[in-house]
Amino acid sequence: MDNTLSEFDLISRLFAPLAQDYDGALALTDDAALVDVPAGHHLVTTTDSLVAGVHFLPHDPPETVAARILRTNLSDIAAMGAEPYVYTMALSLPPDSRLRWLESFTAHLARDQKRFGIRLIGGDTVRTPGPLSIAITALGLVPTDQALTRGRAMPGDRVYVSGTIGDAALGLRVLRGEVQLNDPVLAKYATDRFHFPSPRLNLGKQLRNRATACTDISDGLVRDLSNICRVSRCRAVIHWEDLPVSDACRTALSQLLIEPAVILTGGDDYELVFTAPKGVTVDGTIRIGEIESHNPGQHRVSVLKKGRIFEIGDDAGYEHIWRDTGTPDRV
Amino acid sequence: MDNTLSEFDLISRLFAPLAQDYDGALALTDDAALVDVPAGHHLVTTTDSLVAGVHFLPHDPPETVAARILRTNLSDIAAMGAEPYVYTMALSLPPDSRLRWLESFTAHLARDQKRFGIRLIGGDTVRTPGPLSIAITALGLVPTDQALTRGRAMPGDRVYVSGTIGDAALGLRVLRGEVQLNDPVLAKYATDRFHFPSPRLNLGKQLRNRATACTDISDGLVRDLSNICRVSRCRAVIHWEDLPVSDACRTALSQLLIEPAVILTGGDDYELVFTAPKGVTVDGTIRIGEIESHNPGQHRVSVLKKGRIFEIGDDAGYEHIWRDTGTPDRV
Repeated sequence: MDNTLSEFDLISRLFAPLAQDYDGALALTDDAALVDVPAGHHLVTTTDSLVAGVHFLPHDPPETVAARILRTNLSDIAAMGAEPYVYTMALSLPPDSRLRWLESFTAHLARDQKRFGIRLIGGDTVRTPGPLSIAITALGLVPTDQALTRGRAMPGDRVYVSGTIGDAALGLRVLRGEVQLNDPVLAKYATDRFHFPSPRLNLGKQLRNRATACTDISDGLVRDLSNICRVSRCRAVIHWEDLPVSDACRTALSQLLIEPAVILTGGDDYELVFTAPKGVTVDGTIRIGEIESHNPGQHRVSVLKKGRIFEIGDDAGYEHIWRDTGTPDRV
Repeated sequence: MDNTLSEFDLISRLFAPLAQDYDGALALTDDAALVDVPAGHHLVTTTDSLVAGVHFLPHDPPETVAARILRTNLSDIAAMGAEPYVYTMALSLPPDSRLRWLESFTAHLARDQKRFGIRLIGGDTVRTPGPLSIAITALGLVPTDQALTRGRAMPGDRVYVSGTIGDAALGLRVLRGEVQLNDPVLAKYATDRFHFPSPRLNLGKQLRNRATACTDISDGLVRDLSNICRVSRCRAVIHWEDLPVSDACRTALSQLLIEPAVILTGGDDYELVFTAPKGVTVDGTIRIGEIESHNPGQHRVSVLKKGRIFEIGDDAGYEHIWRDTGTPDRV
């Protein structure tokens, strides 16, 4: 097999097959793609990037990198109540990139494309002296005026989540060797939750015309919910005892392997957190708190635990810190 | 001034002002943006990335980096006959990124947004241990079925370019110190052509329903024209004597500072090369050759110079080479 591939070869061999089901992709042979938006719909656009060593572990297999980059974007589509449509991908390849790795990466993208109903329509592949990095801009469709935003939560609304939280943060600690779970089934559950997010696309669609605000949990429950509260100009009180926690996290908590804060502030779960008026329920979601009015000086999110209130800084969670001088804290 | 900025601060201070004129950007406070496509239009999408040290010089000022990243994307929009609409930007920032640099970068983006009629609607900002890199996905609008593609050039069509070629390649050599032009006016002209591409948006619109194929010259005339020929299944003959060459390039050629091949294969000019049937002319464009039928084994692009034919490999030009092992040649 030829180990020297031009960008043209990469496109025709690896990427064009990902675009073959969408005529407007022009088989990736043109300057741009043509996208048609059906009448009565908004197009929804979102961009997420992953950098090796920052957002995934440098030796993560192509399978998990493909899953995370596509699904984190799909999770944003879900959080808007939209359906996946098409996407573009900008790949920066370091000199030691392997063709085998890219073949596997695109094969797993192909699988997820089928599973979630989305197709590649374009992109760019460049060299970098830095680490592998991937940016995807995903486009979705949502009926006009039915998009879920962060902006319409109201005092009296209830707060819900779509599934257990804290799992991915636990999984990342297991992958890094910082936490050891004796039960391999629990350990695999947690690491899979980190590696293979499940964008809640069906739920997002069900929430149209029902949720008042919605976002996905990428940076941690407190931080993402506080984003809803900031945009909606309100605050939220959540009940520690009502938070859905997996067996894996429950075990880790009881063995003091993780702090409770990991549940509240750990990112990467890609569940949805949303608000809905009293009386509106959605099967399979878990009520965890209420929306209240916000007074100056109050925190946006408070946690009630055994009848006591714990205040948490609005920005607690996975923060993308960048400093003007010196090394960024975390991104 | 606070030199520590969170991603939230970066968005609200630097990026949200770039999005303020488009309601669907939701002030960059949501998971995604909402884009409306007017009836009777295709959306056109294109993605281009720049990496410091690969696509621009590491110490290039923010002004030129902003111009190049936005305008190279706009050039693809022009090549489709489309009008600029909105864009998303994925920024990867190294630890030594300076707030001052980013402020200047976004100020220059703001200027170009006004000039070219495009607005930021979203993106992602991440940390990287590698070099600064920027990926933009630009969205444009074109009336249904009027997009220019590479696919409909026909034997008998004429080949045109929109302006002088080779300038940016000369400018890059001047910037690298490989070529010295004695006349500072000519030197500045060439380096400006590299730093400040002029996307041919007005021309692109004029070419709707007139050009049979069109692309922009990013990788060099021969390579980009051979892309048209490959997709249209034809070949092109171009006339050396008819190629528009600037005073700067003419001087460099006459002083043997650059080879003629630089004119034919140098990238980054961002002029349009297009084909049109006999009898269709467009003011301000220069006829440089003809389309002929292609036989197996023939090169896609031939150059006639002083009555002799010079064959040039279809892939001659700025190539994004990636090797399975070892260092990429060039990207």
